[in-house]
Formats: sequence, C-alpha cells, structure tokens
Amino acid sequence: MNKEFIASEMQALQSRITDRLELIDGLAKFSVDKWDREEGGGGITKIIQKGDLIEKGGVAFSAVHGPVSEVMNKQLGLKGDSFFATGVSIVLHPNNSHVPIIHMNVRYFELNTGEFWFGGGIDLTPHYIIPSQAQLFHQGLKTICDKYDKAFYPKFKTWADEYFFIPHRNETRGIGGIFFDHQDLDSGLSKEQLFNFCIELGDNFTVLYNQQAELGRELSYTEDELSWRNLRRGRYVEFNLVNDRGTKFGLLSGGRTESILMSLPANASWEYNKKVAPNSKEEFTLNSLKKGVNWID
Amino acid sequence: MNKEFIASEMQALQSRITDRLELIDGLAKFSVDKWDREEGGGGITKIIQKGDLIEKGGVAFSAVHGPVSEVMNKQLGLKGDSFFATGVSIVLHPNNSHVPIIHMNVRYFELNTGEFWFGGGIDLTPHYIIPSQAQLFHQGLKTICDKYDKAFYPKFKTWADEYFFIPHRNETRGIGGIFFDHQDLDSGLSKEQLFNFCIELGDNFTVLYNQQAELGRELSYTEDELSWRNLRRGRYVEFNLVNDRGTKFGLLSGGRTESILMSLPANASWEYNKKVAPNSKEEFTLNSLKKGVNWID
Repeated sequence: MNKEFIASEMQALQSRITDRLELIDGLAKFSVDKWDREEGGGGITKIIQKGDLIEKGGVAFSAVHGPVSEVMNKQLGLKGDSFFATGVSIVLHPNNSHVPIIHMNVRYFELNTGEFWFGGGIDLTPHYIIPSQAQLFHQGLKTICDKYDKAFYPKFKTWADEYFFIPHRNETRGIGGIFFDHQDLDSGLSKEQLFNFCIELGDNFTVLYNQQAELGRELSYTEDELSWRNLRRGRYVEFNLVNDRGTKFGLLSGGRTESILMSLPANASWEYNKKVAPNSKEEFTLNSLKKGVNWID
Repeated sequence: MNKEFIASEMQALQSRITDRLELIDGLAKFSVDKWDREEGGGGITKIIQKGDLIEKGGVAFSAVHGPVSEVMNKQLGLKGDSFFATGVSIVLHPNNSHVPIIHMNVRYFELNTGEFWFGGGIDLTPHYIIPSQAQLFHQGLKTICDKYDKAFYPKFKTWADEYFFIPHRNETRGIGGIFFDHQDLDSGLSKEQLFNFCIELGDNFTVLYNQQAELGRELSYTEDELSWRNLRRGRYVEFNLVNDRGTKFGLLSGGRTESILMSLPANASWEYNKKVAPNSKEEFTLNSLKKGVNWID
C-alpha cells in the first residue's frame, strides 16, 4: 500500500462524499477548484454555498510533498528531510439553527525515513444540544471504532474532548466525537487496517450527518434562534483561528489560505458578555459544553 | 511619576474618551463593567452597542500587577519577578460601510527591576480606502508625533505597517497608522515626555476618529456595500485572532476574555475565494492594503 494508492483513494473518497452531499442537500452543487503547491503536490477544494440544507461548506482533498520546513520541524517535531501528506477535510455550516455544524478529517503522513501514520476525527457542534441526538452521533462513531479496536472509541473520544476545547471560553467546541493522531503500527493494527478505518469513517460521514440533518432541517426557527446560531458560529471561528492546531499550522506553513479557511461560516456574530435566560435551551447548551460527558449511556 | 499616578491618568483618559464618544455618537451610552484580576489589579471595560454611529465598540482600562508568569516570560521575554501594567485600549466598529474601523492602545509597563516602558498605537481600517481620508489621518498622527520627536512618525508608521499585517492574506489590516513598543529612556525622551506623548495620542483619538466619521456617517450605503463591510470585518477578526500578539498573549495568559475580545465586530462574514470587479472601489481597496504606502505625500 504505497502513498500514491492512498492519495488516489483519498481523492475518490472526496468524490463519493461530495456526490452524496449534493443528494442530501438537494439544491446546491459543489464548485471545484484545483490548485498546485509550489513546493510539490496540490489539491482539489470543493465548496458548496447557499444550499437547501448547507449554507456554506467545503470538502477538501490534498496530496502534498516536499522538504520538511523549519515550521514543520518546530510545530510538528518532524525529523526527516522530506514528507508526503494526503487527506480529506470537511466542514459544513447548515442554514437551520436546529442542524449541527459538522467537521471531519482523515489524513495520512509519511516521511522519507519510512515512518508513516494516520490521523483524523469527526466532531459535531450543535447550536442547540439535544442529548438523544448526541447519543445517536456518538453511538455511530463507537460502532465504527469497535469494528477495528474496542479501545479506539473511549481513547479517541477523550482525545476529541481535549482537542476540541476552547480554553479562553472554558468550553468544548460542541459535543465532540473522536480525534486521533499519529496512529502507526504501535496501534496494534496493520497499515491496511488503519487505512480501512479512515476510509470507513469517511464513508460513514454522510450517514452520520444525514441522521443529524434529518432531525432538524424541516423544523422552523425564529430570529432569536438564528441570532444564537450566529453567536455559536462566533465561537466556532474563535476555536478555528485561535486554537485549532491544523489551521494554525496551515496558515503558518504557507498553506493555501482559501482552502484552510473554508472552515469559516458565511457569517458569525459576537455580543459582549452575552447572558442566557435561566432554564433556557441556550443555558442547557452552554452547561453541556464540557469535557468527559458520556453521551452514550 | 509613579505607577499609581500613571494608572489614575490612564483611567481619567478612558473617562474623557468615553464621554466624547457618547457625544459623537449622539445615541448610545457606554455600559460599564468593573472587574478584578485574581492575581492582582483589575479593570473597567466600557462597551457601546447599537449607536447611531458605532454599532459595537469598547474602551477598556486596566491596571494589573502580579508575579511574572511563565507565559509572560516566554511570550514577552520578561526577566523580572513581578510586573505592573496599565493602559487604555479601544476598538470601534461603525454601522456605516463608509466609516472606518478604528483601534487605539496606549500602555505603560514596569518590572520590579526598575525597568519601565511605554507602548501604543492608533490604526485605521477603512472598509473602502479613500486616499484623501487616509492622508488626513496620517497627517494628524504625524503632527502629534512631530511635537515629541521628528523621528517618531516615520519610525512608528513603518512599525505599524509591520505589526498590522496579515501574512496569510498578504494584506495590511487597513491603512495603518502608528505603532510603538518598549519606549524607554533610550528613546531620548524623559519618562514624563513619553507619558505625555501617550496621553496626547489618547486625547487626540476622538478628534481623529470624528474627522473620519464625519466624512462617512451621513452617506447612504447599499446592501452590497454592507456585504463588503462584513467581509472586511472578517479580515479584522482574522487579524485579531490569528496575528495580533496582544490578543494572543491576553488569551494565553488567562486575561479576561470578554474584555480582550471586545475588539470583535457584532458580525462578520466569509465567502470562499471572493473576487472583486475590475476597477471597482473594492479592488482599489485591496490593492491599497500594502506596507510602505506614503499616505501623506
């Protein structure tokens, strides 16, 4: 299983996902931007805007290679001379305040030293947290993880709680999901099994998202609910620009800015010292943005 | 001139500025939040929202002290055991797309070692750049600087170009202004002169802003111009959350999040790979967001 094969499978995954998302959305189509990276490789950024379900979203594929830069060495601790990286990244911002924001990423990395690893994650950011929907999402992730290793879900769920956290707000970004990095043969799985795990996550992404979307997309929403959605989008922007290591590394290392920042919503808002009403669903949501919540039981 | 005096003068400056801004706005009043810092000191954050001129803005005073933390040592290179810092920070986001966003900061810092310095800056971010208005702003700053040292304006103007720059966009935040840090006796000025320079900048802030506001606040604007304003606000958010060292340091060091992020607009927007029309005022604005523009001549 060489890197060219993995990259072409990642690209095929991107196509399957965008085809399915167009079916799910029912209105908007993805626009396609191919780009080249000066130092080697390139990518395909697919953007969907003003859909029936999705207001703004992107599904990005890239396969890049080149010398290990000083930034890579400092930020990622990479020791080799040259690297290869490929993966698929997704963020979808829905119109309806009752549909969550979703993010997915699967990626493969190798160095000229022969070292390689997989990473990835899926996490959900509901504007309004509803425990039964959170349970459905986490149960779906657990089912996929359990097929590969019973230890994966608890380990990767905790990792997601740590990763998708906004320290300056003392809030998790949403209800989490799974996150994993640097999975190599030490994981106990073969390279092929790790690859299959990533692809299976990718192929189940649209299933998990469609479940969530179906539960909210036909519900009506008020102006107040849209204002709340926009404030939650503001926190999403904060996480992505202040805390997300992937975004920071991408911007610092001279990645393609438009592809990296496709994760930002069409709009977001901020209000000084926003207070929520006691016993409101907004208060419930804020109180649920904690690490270590067991959403399944 | 001790630190208690400087802090009380900074607080008085805040009051003068908010009084004048209420007069200039004509509709909204500042709300006032006093807060204490656990490790020592505190501040007063004044917020104005939904004004006639200003949609969202803040004028913050703080005077904080305590042990030099690891973050301060790492991020600021501070060598002492304890520090004292006081200053006034302002960001104002107007309603009208023809009025610029403005930012000001003046600050004083001292260490228990006896070291002290002043810092600060004022910069302007027009949604639409108009050279004659940029000239007016820079000429005003130069006039103030020249009273203290003829070398200040060229030096601090270049410093602002470097500081208010968004590398991942290859754009300056706006038309710049002045920025300076670590000004001590090596500047050639006495402590009192440096203090007077900061206070004079602060007192002239409302004059400079009012000039700009008067030129735009009565102009009508279209939906397209508001959309452009919101996209430019998106870049402002990117600068503040990704690039601004003050914001990053504040969030990392456990500063008061609501006071630090009062700089964010009421709303902002993003559009994938936005293109502007050839020869439009949007294109002119983007083409003007460069370092090293001499706005005065």
